[in-house]
Amino acid sequence: MSEKDKLGLDKLPSLFYIPSSVVHKFLDTPTSIDIVKKAFCDYAIGQSHMPPKMYLDLPQFNGDFRAMPAYIENGYAGMKWVNSHNNSRSALPSVMALFLLNDPKTGQPLAIIEASSLTNIRTGASGGLAAAYLSKPGASRLSLIGAGNQAFFQAKAIICASNLTHISIFDLDVNVATSLKEKLKFLFSGKVTIETSIQHSVESADIIVTTTPSRSPLIKKEWVMPGTHINAIGADAEGKQELDPELLRSSIIVVDDFEQASHSGEINVPISNKIISKSNIRGTLGEILTNNQQGRINSSEITIFDSTGLAVQDLESASHVFLEVKKTIEETGCIPEGVSLLPF
Amino acid sequence: MSEKDKLGLDKLPSLFYIPSSVVHKFLDTPTSIDIVKKAFCDYAIGQSHMPPKMYLDLPQFNGDFRAMPAYIENGYAGMKWVNSHNNSRSALPSVMALFLLNDPKTGQPLAIIEASSLTNIRTGASGGLAAAYLSKPGASRLSLIGAGNQAFFQAKAIICASNLTHISIFDLDVNVATSLKEKLKFLFSGKVTIETSIQHSVESADIIVTTTPSRSPLIKKEWVMPGTHINAIGADAEGKQELDPELLRSSIIVVDDFEQASHSGEINVPISNKIISKSNIRGTLGEILTNNQQGRINSSEITIFDSTGLAVQDLESASHVFLEVKKTIEETGCIPEGVSLLPF
Repeated sequence: MSEKDKLGLDKLPSLFYIPSSVVHKFLDTPTSIDIVKKAFCDYAIGQSHMPPKMYLDLPQFNGDFRAMPAYIENGYAGMKWVNSHNNSRSALPSVMALFLLNDPKTGQPLAIIEASSLTNIRTGASGGLAAAYLSKPGASRLSLIGAGNQAFFQAKAIICASNLTHISIFDLDVNVATSLKEKLKFLFSGKVTIETSIQHSVESADIIVTTTPSRSPLIKKEWVMPGTHINAIGADAEGKQELDPELLRSSIIVVDDFEQASHSGEINVPISNKIISKSNIRGTLGEILTNNQQGRINSSEITIFDSTGLAVQDLESASHVFLEVKKTIEETGCIPEGVSLLPF
Repeated sequence: MSEKDKLGLDKLPSLFYIPSSVVHKFLDTPTSIDIVKKAFCDYAIGQSHMPPKMYLDLPQFNGDFRAMPAYIENGYAGMKWVNSHNNSRSALPSVMALFLLNDPKTGQPLAIIEASSLTNIRTGASGGLAAAYLSKPGASRLSLIGAGNQAFFQAKAIICASNLTHISIFDLDVNVATSLKEKLKFLFSGKVTIETSIQHSVESADIIVTTTPSRSPLIKKEWVMPGTHINAIGADAEGKQELDPELLRSSIIVVDDFEQASHSGEINVPISNKIISKSNIRGTLGEILTNNQQGRINSSEITIFDSTGLAVQDLESASHVFLEVKKTIEETGCIPEGVSLLPF
């Protein structure tokens, strides 16, 4: 009798609950960058599939829920259910998520994964990946516009994927900026400064990351130096935008997915206002990673990565965590600490 | 310090897992009929909301997944993730589901509920409700066409909501029919017979329930006696149908939701073939329950309830189970047996 049999895991159906602590254990930043890269490539070559995100809008609570299903060929199927609320007045995070992982052949649920951390990590990783592939050679100065939770994960991944010497932080709330500075000290040996002017922060950057909930442009075209790369992360729903539309019109725009970006990404407002069109989009990050599209051509272009977050990123991340849990069980005969086996 | 405080449930965030055994405990058939009635009424009067079901189709595995989000005003938000596969060659059920229940004000996940049983029970309950409101006075003979899992739940609810004296069972597999007969013995004191002819089964019925996966009509118009009521349950995806389109054209059709029924219910094929149109639909069951539409007018009409299953039925059922769990905790200071408190 194998250790696996002893645990009764061959007796169907069984269902794992995988909490945040285990997600963090198996999804560190370098691993997540690799997984997100694979997710973009698989999607670009048609190995993974996702219907458009579905929104349940609750404007009366300044929030919404999103259902994000996906399927990977020769892999798993699953769905993330995630909210986006303005919870700044409560102790709760703005984004909370669960991921449901299934066997695509039978539909059987295999795992429920805490996906707030998974979302934070994979969104950061895609920013790290975009910065690595789209920023100019020698880019060393990162400016964070907005210093909330996702700014930390962006910085963590860009530190990992680039050669930074300096990080500057701008936030309307200086306490939030200070708190991020403290957290970055533990993982970055370069200089970290707090900026009180967006313009100055933008002017001195090689790489800019915007993670604000803004609905009107914060960053003016004339502030952005030639050769800058921007990760536009904050806009993730209709009506949201952080960048001057004229900046978008004159830059190389790379999206994670054209459909999603044009409905809910940084480009959604200027596209609906007809300031830019599909022809202004260079391509998807997946097309660039698979060499089906050219990214930055020279050191003076301004590049913008418009990130909305793809269900296939969540699915590949969740699949990795689940497979690591299974591997641990097979190797040790024990369920990893924190993981629960649920009756189903 | 209250018992609730002792359990630490006031400390956020906490998340319950509610398994099948607890769903069955708090969602017996009479309760479920009441809840489903409330769900249809709330939806009819605009108190609850649901975007259309979203499908992740996996034709290579003869299956699909469906995301079914919903929100009730002054209640909860949530989403069911459910598959439909042909699992007849494996030990797994065809339909497996999880329900995620959230606080709509903050987005916080509150409970994960095993929803395969919840789906079976609420689908049965809506059939019981439709039979109670649409069958002719004195209807006493039920014919089940298809004897799988859902036929049992339909019969259970119709026994509860009507005055049956006789149940006949038809299934292509006589072992499946026999097995259902054995199960019904425990909850029905009337006569239960197995039929080997669909025609004979249909001709002798006051109430017919079809629960097959058929893609071509099984029941001919000329077999159906005046005054019969039919619950058309099996068709739940594009291309599925169980009834002669001519029967649909000449009957009183009641749907659970027009949009869903016309895309995936019994009426989907005849509507896309233009054999019937929206004008052939009398209304929704919710409209009839709230007296905004007339149901059966006389004892000779044939009525058909086209059931596709609504996200609001799942949400109201899940909300009830969650509130019962909370009530038990408040009253006893203990988490009900089987329920897990998960780290989130």
